[in-house]
This record gives sequence, structure tokens and C-alpha cells, in this order.
Amino acid sequence: MRIAFDDALSVMREKLVEHGTSPEKAGMVAYEMARNSLEGTYTHGINRFARLVRGIDSGIVIPGAEPTLISSFGAIERYDGNLGFGITNALFAMDRAMAKASEHGIGMAGLVNTNHWMRAATYGYHAVEKGYAAICFTNTIPNMPTWGAVDSRLGNNPFVMAFPRKDGRHMVFDSAMTQFSYGALEVARLAGERMSVAAGFDKDGLLSDDPAAVLETRRMIPAGFWKGSALSFLLDIFASCITLGRCVADISRLEGDEHGVSQLFFAIDYGKMVDEEEAYRTAERAIAFLKESKKADGAGEIVYPGERMMRARERNLREGIPVDDGVWNEILSL
Amino acid sequence: MRIAFDDALSVMREKLVEHGTSPEKAGMVAYEMARNSLEGTYTHGINRFARLVRGIDSGIVIPGAEPTLISSFGAIERYDGNLGFGITNALFAMDRAMAKASEHGIGMAGLVNTNHWMRAATYGYHAVEKGYAAICFTNTIPNMPTWGAVDSRLGNNPFVMAFPRKDGRHMVFDSAMTQFSYGALEVARLAGERMSVAAGFDKDGLLSDDPAAVLETRRMIPAGFWKGSALSFLLDIFASCITLGRCVADISRLEGDEHGVSQLFFAIDYGKMVDEEEAYRTAERAIAFLKESKKADGAGEIVYPGERMMRARERNLREGIPVDDGVWNEILSL
Repeated sequence: MRIAFDDALSVMREKLVEHGTSPEKAGMVAYEMARNSLEGTYTHGINRFARLVRGIDSGIVIPGAEPTLISSFGAIERYDGNLGFGITNALFAMDRAMAKASEHGIGMAGLVNTNHWMRAATYGYHAVEKGYAAICFTNTIPNMPTWGAVDSRLGNNPFVMAFPRKDGRHMVFDSAMTQFSYGALEVARLAGERMSVAAGFDKDGLLSDDPAAVLETRRMIPAGFWKGSALSFLLDIFASCITLGRCVADISRLEGDEHGVSQLFFAIDYGKMVDEEEAYRTAERAIAFLKESKKADGAGEIVYPGERMMRARERNLREGIPVDDGVWNEILSL
Repeated sequence: MRIAFDDALSVMREKLVEHGTSPEKAGMVAYEMARNSLEGTYTHGINRFARLVRGIDSGIVIPGAEPTLISSFGAIERYDGNLGFGITNALFAMDRAMAKASEHGIGMAGLVNTNHWMRAATYGYHAVEKGYAAICFTNTIPNMPTWGAVDSRLGNNPFVMAFPRKDGRHMVFDSAMTQFSYGALEVARLAGERMSVAAGFDKDGLLSDDPAAVLETRRMIPAGFWKGSALSFLLDIFASCITLGRCVADISRLEGDEHGVSQLFFAIDYGKMVDEEEAYRTAERAIAFLKESKKADGAGEIVYPGERMMRARERNLREGIPVDDGVWNEILSL
């Protein structure tokens, strides 16, 4: 079925209020989750909403919790998320990074003891829509083996870099450190399809593009093999050591669904130092050069990071958001 | 042959002085280039020195040039590198980011119109050795096709994240956005070896681990395929739009060897906000958890980013730096 954005938003808002969330906060969370689906990140939108509500019911997500300042110095601050909603905590932290950036040119906010922020790109868009450049990342439960290992001791630690465009069609890089998500493997397995490149190792220790084989071993490969493995580790070190939050190792010792993660948010108010119009023109030269690339045989359109999201958004605004009947019925019954 | 670090340093310093560099600056450049080889980054150390001197002789590198401030606001600054040495310009910029971080908690310095900084990790080490966390990156000439394209319109844009350890065995991620460097492909081709994973596409458009086949097409693959491609683009956008320096597209229009690139340096004085001892302990928990990984059959030791460098350093300090006779004789004849 397809559901209009406004309908998805209002049903999810109502369910959150029924489960103890203030109307204002319920509206923020439901808006971002509906937007994630609208913009094509189905795994972290409507499809994940029932799991979020179960998190509230099990006490992992505390709807009334607000972030509290732990310590700060100049342009850097760190907050305890007090296990509130991952989405509202992360929006708050990026707001703080932007406030500090307005004052100092650059600002950083750390967030400890928070919950899954759903789509990483959300916080990049939050900043670029206000004219800041932004970087942010989170750590996670261990879900990826380091290069050369068989057991998962790294997080996939999603990482975002975002820069605004004048026309609002912003440039946003949003990537977990695994080559594919477990969600993507499940979808391909159900459809009987292979992945476009190797997704992990099979039980014989060979690289494989068969999603079933990789789901069996859970030996996902890091994007770029040793490269994504090493970057994931440093993202965890930054997210936990600069904030004194939990590192992936610490998160692995908590019981229940993923919670208590650590995050960092950076905003740059570059317009305080350079002519914003000139920065926009530089970006347009870079995009034009990229898009003049000669396509490989059989390849799709050459896109810049963020462009595909806008295609999904336009289509889903027009036609409604595709939602599995079972997923929607589960939400209605919560 | 093998050459002692001190001998490599003094020969390179002398050659730089003969080619118009002040003794102080020649010492800084020669020290870092000798250290790059000492620590196992052979491609950006002694092996590249003759090319650097040719860059001076052709006017691309101006030995007497110093960085000059263009504009600043609070904790952010940007400098014109005036085509001075990439190494001394970048050390200066990271020093400025650290000075700003001491004052504001975080600092950022942009550098435009500068030269190749050689080993990216140099600037990470420069910061962590003084107790800061650091991020830095540079753009480059176009040397990597974007995902789905055959011609190179992205840089490999090396990216660094570095965090200190108490015992000095620091954690440093240093990675270009291609899965392999051209240098690594050349070495494997001469040795008649295959790459450990696919390095690019062959002339039939198929993924290939044959270095000769990829050197022929020059269709290198980004690390993580579409992921490294997208990250490379955002690194270029940040490096050029925040500084108003050249983007990869602009660099492609300059004649001669790569020059005039743009770079960004971030330093975080996190000790101003959190207990440094507690941050060190968090990092040790993360490293211990990683190193307890169960190794895959046939895999080497599980290492954290930066560990392998120290092995090379210890061995080369003891035995001397391996250098090709032809490379060394060319340097002596400069």
C-alpha cells in the first residue's frame, strides 16, 4: 500500500502520545520518521516505528527525558541524553553545535547515553537547511567484524558530511561503515537477488554476494575492507573518548535492544569567514564537473550525494509512501 | 640498500638548501619525508623526494613562500599557502587549528593554493603528539572515477582522524578514497602479483584484481564503491567551499604536476572539557575489545589503526630504511 506523508505522521504522533510522549515531542519524532520513509530511507522510518514503541514500553527509550549539560568549554559541549528519544536528542545536539558555531565559527556537541537516531542524514539536513556545513556520527552495537576477524567487534557507526546548496538540493553523504546493511541483505534475500558487489564472507570464508550466505555467517564486510574497518574504529574512539560516553565495547555489555550510544555533532558557520555566494559557486563547479562524467556501460545516472534522496521524496510526495500492509497494521494495533 | 634515518634526513636537507630552501625549512621538510619512509609510507617519503625537487625547479613549489592569513572568525581561519612546501604549510595550518582549539575547545584552519602534503597521517601525528584529537583532509587532482563512470573526475582526497594514546602508540586513520594507490598497483605489477581484493575495472568493464589490467584502464575503484565515491566528493566540497580554494574540477584545469590544492585541519582540545585520563581509559577498553577478535583462517594479526606504522618504524630504525639504489642515486645527483 501507499500512505500519504501527513497520514503517516499523524498516526505515528498519536501512537507516541498514547505511549506517554508529550504532543510536541511526539510531533517531532513522528515527523522525522515519516520524512525518513518519504525520502527513501525505509529501514529507519515507518518500518522501524513499532520497534521504537516497543523500546518505550521496555524502558529503553524514556519519552520524558531531556538532554542535560555535563560539561563545556568555549565552542564545545557535552550532554547526557538520559535515554530520551534518539531523534530529539540528536536534533538538540546539532542545534547546540550550530549555536556554538554562530558564536565561534565552529561548534561541537557531544551526546552520551542516547538512543538510536534513526537516519543519520537527518542531522546533516537539519544543519544545512539553516546554512551550516555539518559533520556528525554515532557509534552502535558491535555489528561488523574488523578486517581479518570473524566476530563483530566494531559498530557500523554511520557517518555524515553535509553542505548546503543555494537551491535547497543539498549535498549529503550518509553512510554506515558496512558495505550493506542487514536490512538490505534481508530485502535481497526475500527477493531472491544477489548483491551488486560482495557483501561479506560465506561459511567457507570466501567473499560472497549471496545475501543468504552472509546472513548466515554475519561476517559483513566493511566498506573498503580494511579502510572502512579502520574508519569505524576511529569514529567510535572520537564519539566515546571526547564525550566520555560508551564505546562500542561498553555498548556490547548492555542488555536488550541497542541503547546508550555516543554521538558527536560538528557545525561550521563558514559564512562568517567566506562569501557564501562564492562558496555556492564553488560547489556548483564541482557538481557540474562530476555530472559531466562519461558513464560506464549499463550504469545509471551519475548523481551527487543527496540527489537520489530527492528523487524518492518527489515520487513519494506525489504517490504516497510505500508501506508493507503488515507493518502498517502492526502500527495501527500498537 | 638500507639507509639510516639520520643519513636520509641530512642528504635531503642539503639538497633542499642547494635548491633555494632556508636551512630551517629544509630541515622540517627533510625530517618529515625521512620519517614517512621510516614509518613505512615509502611512496611519500624518500621515493618522492626527487619529484619534489623537480617541483621546485619547475616553479610549482616556491621554497621561500609562507602562508598568509586571508580571513578568520573566532575559532576558524583560512590561509593562502602561496604555493610553498605542502609539508610546512600543512604543519603550520594544524598548529593554527591547535592554537584556536586551546582557546575555543575546537579550532579549524583552511589552506588554499598549497602543495602536496605527502603523507596525510603526518598532520594527525603532529596534533596527537601534542594531546589534541585531529581531523584533516586534502583534495587532489582528479584520479578516480565516480561510481558508474569511466573517467576520473574525483580526487582520492586523503582523510585522517587521529586520537592520542597515553603511551604514545597513537590511533591514526589515514586513507585515500581509492581502494589502492597507483603506487601499490605498480609495485604489485612489477612483482607479478594480484591485489588482495578488486582494485578497479579491466577493459571489459569487469572488476579485477590484476594491477596491470587496472593500470591500463585507470578505472580505479573507490573504497566501498559508491561509498568512497560519495565521501570523496564531500571531502572536496568541504575543502574547497569552506576555504574558497580550488575544488578538484579547478585543480584539473591547472597545467603541470599537481599543485594549488585545498585542505582543512580540525583540532579538538577535548582535555578542556573531559578528564584526559578517563578518555585514555575509554580508548584502552576499545582497543582491548578489538584485539580480542577471533581471527579468520589465514588472517594476520588484528591491529588498530596506526599499529602497523609503529612496527615499520621500529624495524627501520633498527635496520635502516629500505631504498631502491636507483632512487637514492637520483637524489644524490640532484
